[in-house]
Amino acid sequence: MNREAPLGVFDSGLGGLTVVRALRAALPHEDIIYLGDTARVPYGTKGPATVLRYALACTRALVDRGVKSIVIACNTVSAVAPDRLRADFDIPVLSVIEPSARAAIRAAGDGRIGVLGTAATIASGAYVRAVCANSTRCEVVGHAAPLLVPLAEEGWLEGEVPTLVVRHYLQPFVGRGIGAVVLGCTHYPLFRPLIEEQVRAMLGPHVPIVDSALATADETRAFLVARDLTTTRKRAGQLEFLVTDEPRAFEAVAQRFLGDTAPKATIIDL
Amino acid sequence: MNREAPLGVFDSGLGGLTVVRALRAALPHEDIIYLGDTARVPYGTKGPATVLRYALACTRALVDRGVKSIVIACNTVSAVAPDRLRADFDIPVLSVIEPSARAAIRAAGDGRIGVLGTAATIASGAYVRAVCANSTRCEVVGHAAPLLVPLAEEGWLEGEVPTLVVRHYLQPFVGRGIGAVVLGCTHYPLFRPLIEEQVRAMLGPHVPIVDSALATADETRAFLVARDLTTTRKRAGQLEFLVTDEPRAFEAVAQRFLGDTAPKATIIDL
Repeated sequence: MNREAPLGVFDSGLGGLTVVRALRAALPHEDIIYLGDTARVPYGTKGPATVLRYALACTRALVDRGVKSIVIACNTVSAVAPDRLRADFDIPVLSVIEPSARAAIRAAGDGRIGVLGTAATIASGAYVRAVCANSTRCEVVGHAAPLLVPLAEEGWLEGEVPTLVVRHYLQPFVGRGIGAVVLGCTHYPLFRPLIEEQVRAMLGPHVPIVDSALATADETRAFLVARDLTTTRKRAGQLEFLVTDEPRAFEAVAQRFLGDTAPKATIIDL
Repeated sequence: MNREAPLGVFDSGLGGLTVVRALRAALPHEDIIYLGDTARVPYGTKGPATVLRYALACTRALVDRGVKSIVIACNTVSAVAPDRLRADFDIPVLSVIEPSARAAIRAAGDGRIGVLGTAATIASGAYVRAVCANSTRCEVVGHAAPLLVPLAEEGWLEGEVPTLVVRHYLQPFVGRGIGAVVLGCTHYPLFRPLIEEQVRAMLGPHVPIVDSALATADETRAFLVARDLTTTRKRAGQLEFLVTDEPRAFEAVAQRFLGDTAPKATIIDL
C-alpha cells in the first residue's frame, strides 16, 4: 500500500462530510477523495441487499482511483457491508460503527447505550453486535430517527420543528437508564447543539453524546499510524469530491456539513 | 395498441399509489402495472438529468411488459421527462402536471395559483409553463415543500410536527391573492385533511385544493375513452406491483397510500 495515496471516503450523500471534517482535523496532511452517491441518497430507508449493491459500486470507484484505505462514512453501509467489502477488495476498510460502539462503551459507564440511527441501521442490529463484541456489560437501546436526515439535507437545523422531532425521537430513552447517546448516522452531528440541549432536559445533565464521525476519525488516525500508512508530506491535505447526481446545490450544502468552503465536485456514473 | 393491455404507472416510490387509487375509482375495470423505483427514491431532491435517466429506465421496464399507455404518477418526472419519453417510446405518455394545471386554472377563478411541490418540480418551472400554455390569465406562485415526502413515507401524517411543517410551507402564500392550492406532488394528498384545515385558516375559507392524483385520473379516463383504448372486460381490474428495493415494508406503506389492501410486490432490477 502506498502511504502517499489518498484516503477514500464514501457515503450515500453529504452526511459523510461530517466524517471528512473530523478526518481533516485528526489527519491534516492526508489527501481525501470523497464520493457521495447523491443520485441514490438516502440509503437508510432501503433494504440491506440494495445498500450492499450500492456500497460495492462506491468502493470499486474509489479503489479504481488508487486510494490506500476505505473509510465508510455512513452508518447504514457500515451496518451491512464491511465484511463483504473486506472480502471483495484487497484494501483496509474502516467502518463508523465499530469505533462508535467502542467510544459508547467508554462513555456509558454503568448505563445503557441509546443509539439513534436510520431505519436500516437500527433494523440491522449492528450496534448491538458491535457493543457485545467489545464489552460483556453494556446494553443497547436503538431507535430509528429517520426524519433527521431530510431535515439536515434541507438545512432545517433549529427552531420548533427540529426541536419537536428530536424530542419525539429521544422520548423512548426516557427512564431507561441511558448512560450515553450515540449519534448513529453521519447526518446527526448537524443537530448536536439541539440534541445536547434535549438530552440534558430529558435524560439528565450528565449523559454524554457520542459522535460517530469523531470516533471514526480517531480510530482511522490510530490505524494509519500503527500500519505506517500516514503520508510523509507536510503540506495541507487536498480534497477531491465526486458525486453521482448533478453538483448543482452541492457547494452550499457541503459547506454546511464541512464547516468550511467546499471545492467543486465532479459528477461520475457508477 | 391493444385495449385489453394494462396501464403502466410509475413513480419514484410509493407516492404514485395515490394516482393508482384515483385511477381505480375512475377506471375500475383496467388492469394496472405499478412500478415504484424504491431503490432510488426520492427523485424530488435530485437534478433533471438524473431524474430523466431514471424515468427512461422505468418506462422501458413497463413498455417491455406490454402496457398500452404510460401514466407518470410523479410530478418531478412530469416536470422534466414527458417530451423525451414521448420521443423515445411509441406509446401514449400521460403526465400529472398538464391535468393538474388545467384543473387549477378552472379552480382558481381570478386568483393566483399556489403550487406546493418538490424542489425539482418547483425549480423546473413546469407548472408555470403548463398554466401559461392553457390560460392567458393565471399567475403561478410555486414553493418547494420537501419535508412532506419523508413525513408521508414515515406515515407521520398528523399532530404537531406535520401541522407546523404544513404551516411553514403555506406561509409564503399568505396575502398573495391565492385562488387555489395545487398539491403538486403525489405524496401530498396524504396530508389533505391537514392542508385543507390550514388553507382555510391561513388563506381563507373558500380556497379550493387541487389534487394532482385526481386530476390525472380524470384526464386518463377521458383520453382512453376518446381513443377507444378502454378495456371491454367487465371484471374488476387487476393490480401488479413492481419495486426496485426489497419489498420488506412495502405492503404496510402501500396500504396507507392506496386506502386498500395491497397485493405483494415483485422486486425487479432496472
